[in-house]
Amino acid sequence: MVRKPGSWLGMKKPTGIVISSRIRLARNIEGVAFPGWAGEQERVQLLTRLKGCFTSLASMPNTLVLEMAELAETDRDVLRERHLISQELAERGPGSALAISSDEQIAIMVNEEDHLRLQAIAPGMQLRDIWDKINAVDSEIEDLFGYAFSPQLGYLTACPSNVGTGLRASVMMHLAGLRLTNEVEPVINGLEKIGLTVRGLWGEGTEAYGNMFQVSNQQTLGHSEAQIIDAFIDLVTEVTEHEKNARARLAESQRVNLIDWVARAYGLLKNARIMSSQEKADLLSALRLGIEMGYVGGVDIADINQIMLMGKTGHLQKSTGRVLGPEERDTLRARLTRNKLQNAKLLE
Amino acid sequence: MVRKPGSWLGMKKPTGIVISSRIRLARNIEGVAFPGWAGEQERVQLLTRLKGCFTSLASMPNTLVLEMAELAETDRDVLRERHLISQELAERGPGSALAISSDEQIAIMVNEEDHLRLQAIAPGMQLRDIWDKINAVDSEIEDLFGYAFSPQLGYLTACPSNVGTGLRASVMMHLAGLRLTNEVEPVINGLEKIGLTVRGLWGEGTEAYGNMFQVSNQQTLGHSEAQIIDAFIDLVTEVTEHEKNARARLAESQRVNLIDWVARAYGLLKNARIMSSQEKADLLSALRLGIEMGYVGGVDIADINQIMLMGKTGHLQKSTGRVLGPEERDTLRARLTRNKLQNAKLLE
Repeated sequence: MVRKPGSWLGMKKPTGIVISSRIRLARNIEGVAFPGWAGEQERVQLLTRLKGCFTSLASMPNTLVLEMAELAETDRDVLRERHLISQELAERGPGSALAISSDEQIAIMVNEEDHLRLQAIAPGMQLRDIWDKINAVDSEIEDLFGYAFSPQLGYLTACPSNVGTGLRASVMMHLAGLRLTNEVEPVINGLEKIGLTVRGLWGEGTEAYGNMFQVSNQQTLGHSEAQIIDAFIDLVTEVTEHEKNARARLAESQRVNLIDWVARAYGLLKNARIMSSQEKADLLSALRLGIEMGYVGGVDIADINQIMLMGKTGHLQKSTGRVLGPEERDTLRARLTRNKLQNAKLLE
Repeated sequence: MVRKPGSWLGMKKPTGIVISSRIRLARNIEGVAFPGWAGEQERVQLLTRLKGCFTSLASMPNTLVLEMAELAETDRDVLRERHLISQELAERGPGSALAISSDEQIAIMVNEEDHLRLQAIAPGMQLRDIWDKINAVDSEIEDLFGYAFSPQLGYLTACPSNVGTGLRASVMMHLAGLRLTNEVEPVINGLEKIGLTVRGLWGEGTEAYGNMFQVSNQQTLGHSEAQIIDAFIDLVTEVTEHEKNARARLAESQRVNLIDWVARAYGLLKNARIMSSQEKADLLSALRLGIEMGYVGGVDIADINQIMLMGKTGHLQKSTGRVLGPEERDTLRARLTRNKLQNAKLLE
């Protein structure tokens, strides 16, 4: 029922500093109480109405609808680890569901905080492409059901922060170079000053595991969707340039240290028997940089994305078909990583 | 002039917990002032007398005499790192010398603290063998020159702590198992209580690099040489049993952690580009244990001993023929280690 891990991450050949792009839209159906106000019966009724539509959308073919109440906990964990559902949706009961396209690039959460949370996600820097996709799905659903909308405010949402476009654009960025040159903090502070939100992907604040940062635009009022996305792309491009610059400086003045960092990560990932998810994320950051800088071959960025995902608890448990203790997880994570990197080679 | 690194370490196939055995005798020539009291002329005269004898000893064939004043600093460093001379001898001027047998198992320091410091050293647990060797050399020199000797006290030495037999027996032990089970401290405390001296090979106190400990018997009075050596062998055997026991327990109850420790060391030694001597010693401890427990193949303990030695500053500088800065040493050390471990393989 749940497809092989991370089809959206593995499907193209993603490279570079932007690991993935994501856009989500918050929408509510006209004349229906918001999920927080609605009773279970109303929520279930809405889902029933929507289900029929999801499977016939021209802009979202081969859609699968997964009802949260019918899913095993492991399956919900897997969906959460793939960023397809939120923890909040996973915990909700009858009426809550996820509709996903067969390539997992389009995902719609039903009866989370809003009636609909439409999300498009793709590897690399593809904000404009996914905007086109999600915009098409959004228009089709709006034509069928009508959205709660105010001419003054725009789309109405459960939380005032989403009112307006209901849009949130985000990218996951790998800022290993800036981290090594100790410039990640000033860059993040700069982004936050102009209204962007930056958080470490799994750690707290700037204590990101694996030098992964999620940068997102929370602004939803006063501009069109296209304007918001264009401005966001400009900022992400600027951060990408900073990161490239840091890498170039490191390769120039710290070449041996840089290769040492990559080579040590390579040696540990290929040999360790026990590995925590934090350590794995940190070592994969070095390996990813090594691949992108030509120090490591025999493995590509899509493999690294797969390893990142398959080492997470839910995915590990799904692969073994049972609940695993922390020690079993650390051992299995290390083994899967070793196997996946069998053909990796240091080139320097 | 100085032979290839570590012939005494590489010559046999040493295995096990006792890395090397060493016995030294402190002796002074009858009727000649002790080195600390003698002027330069007297010291040089003594060396001249002794030199002729060293090259014709039946018990020590093919002896080479190296005068400290004529050696380059790099060569003195190399001898010191092989435990053939002391820092003190290296710093002394005319009259100070080292006589070494071609296999480097017998070494005699001339005009260090005493006129003669006779040393026999061999890989593994060979205290009885080297006692026979050094005893033969000692008797031959005594017959030729006569030693300062008191019927009440025994051999007279510059420092009262050596008076009597003038004997010091020591072993270098690899106590990785006891370190991992947190038992190294109680074992060391026990040995010190019964009069043995234990020190970390390069670190301070019990903060040994690479889990290497030098255990030595300082007692020189009141027993014959044979009695002292027998008692010392019994104690070393006891510590060896403790270490074996610790390893067996670890293999039984902590197998995955143990293999993880070995595999991580293997991965770093085979890949790192920069390595300090302390890190190298610590990682080699894990690799050594791995070889002895059958987790690592394609490399033997003699190789590990060679790697241990060739990464030291003097040996590195000797191999390149010039003085190296700390960064160059760390890079060269890592490269030599990688090359030497090219055929090493994890078996588990």
